[in-house]
Amino acid sequence: MRKVKACALQFSCTKNVQENIDKAATLIKKAAAMGAQIILLPELFERQYFCQERRYDYYDFAKKVSENDAVKALSPLAKELGVVLIISFYEKDVNVLYNSVEIIDCDGTDLGTYRKTHIPDDHYYQEKFYFTPGNTGFKVFDTKYGKIGVGICWDQWFPETARCLAINGAELLFYPTAIGSEPILESDSMPHWRRTMQGHSAANVIPVIAANRYGTETVEPCDENGGQKSSLNFYGSSFITDEVGEIVESADREGDAILIHEFDLDEVNKARFDWGLFRDRRPECYGDITG
Amino acid sequence: MRKVKACALQFSCTKNVQENIDKAATLIKKAAAMGAQIILLPELFERQYFCQERRYDYYDFAKKVSENDAVKALSPLAKELGVVLIISFYEKDVNVLYNSVEIIDCDGTDLGTYRKTHIPDDHYYQEKFYFTPGNTGFKVFDTKYGKIGVGICWDQWFPETARCLAINGAELLFYPTAIGSEPILESDSMPHWRRTMQGHSAANVIPVIAANRYGTETVEPCDENGGQKSSLNFYGSSFITDEVGEIVESADREGDAILIHEFDLDEVNKARFDWGLFRDRRPECYGDITG
Repeated sequence: MRKVKACALQFSCTKNVQENIDKAATLIKKAAAMGAQIILLPELFERQYFCQERRYDYYDFAKKVSENDAVKALSPLAKELGVVLIISFYEKDVNVLYNSVEIIDCDGTDLGTYRKTHIPDDHYYQEKFYFTPGNTGFKVFDTKYGKIGVGICWDQWFPETARCLAINGAELLFYPTAIGSEPILESDSMPHWRRTMQGHSAANVIPVIAANRYGTETVEPCDENGGQKSSLNFYGSSFITDEVGEIVESADREGDAILIHEFDLDEVNKARFDWGLFRDRRPECYGDITG
Repeated sequence: MRKVKACALQFSCTKNVQENIDKAATLIKKAAAMGAQIILLPELFERQYFCQERRYDYYDFAKKVSENDAVKALSPLAKELGVVLIISFYEKDVNVLYNSVEIIDCDGTDLGTYRKTHIPDDHYYQEKFYFTPGNTGFKVFDTKYGKIGVGICWDQWFPETARCLAINGAELLFYPTAIGSEPILESDSMPHWRRTMQGHSAANVIPVIAANRYGTETVEPCDENGGQKSSLNFYGSSFITDEVGEIVESADREGDAILIHEFDLDEVNKARFDWGLFRDRRPECYGDITG
């Protein structure tokens, strides 16, 4: 038996970086007190979702990992509380900016960075303006509580992300997210979003943990964006699935949430073998995927 | 607008080939009368699921497509009723045997064969004894009603099947199936089975149509299999999803069923573009999938 308690934190973000970091710290401490061992924070929680608009001065939000406020403030909590932390942040690497996560092991060791591979671009999710597609590849981090794979938001829509992470030995998949309303498409993507990740879970026989922000964030029109108006309602609905894609923990569309679920990773890995899918893969037939 | 009515047929199978073909013909005619245009039959519906046991003499069930009883009997109905038929059968290709489907266009044209890529093997789903893994690759068939991709049963558990078909231009995904109880694992795989395909639908923004058999099939112990006893309960639950993975038509675990759903393929294709996923794929990062 290798039991581990995975956790997703859901909260709303204000315009004040310190407030958001403090909120994250408070929830991390609460979650740890509840037994959480691997704690996932939402995507880019240091700020409101700045990609609603295109502003050159927002490039200044990006910092080297060693200088990022959230990583600096929260990393010490990992060792203090004995928890693994998955911290999303806007990363500066000399002349290139990435949407990244840093993984801090429960003894405080920095296990490294994953940079978001798939970058979306829509009217109010203008991420290609801010982030270069990641160059780290799909990385599995060998934490003291288990091997974890991390995809960031838009990555969660791609079966390739989950498959590569599972192939590389991930035992749990984590997805920090910032997703909400679609003012142009006028659709509620929430069930679509969940079903896509439930599918990754089911197809790879692996639990999935997703953490989203919630709340309405409105930007003021400015000259730089031709007076563009916008407002997004982030829909929370953070969740955890078991290894066959069933949702076992679920947050509401609004409200802070600490979702915790215990998995026996040995049992999960046994279920993956018993079902036989990875035995029967035929990589030589999948050339269209890399073509 | 390119509207098309997709259909899944669900029925149980007896030990009499002609009875099963007659049943299929009756349901095809009923479905066509209800407006169905692309009709999917369950996997290997000519017989009870013979892969429960290993019997050399069952190799004789396999025939060339031109000699297969179901294809010969049902193909004329395609032209007569103006429907596309997806006919599953056990195929003999000289010295090699495959689990195949033949696609007959609504004018009677034979559009070709797809051979099941992924072959399962478990205590009572002993398919590796009967079927060589398919050598056709993932094929998209350009029918008069739209471009369709077909995976066969175990194929439906692999994100690679759905992704390759979507990349190659499939507008609808069809999966003939024979799946039921797991006497050893003692689990009900039905929800897992559905969620996996709902995930393919959601991730590729494409409708999925799945047809399963239902009913209990019991085999008699014989010397060739060391007196092995077994009985499988096939769980029906055939379904159709919309392009975001929501189940829009659903059959019960028991009982004949004709599921029909109309799609506007232009709208589906527009939704796929608008959501932007295929734009943002990064094939150069997916080497682990073909490695």
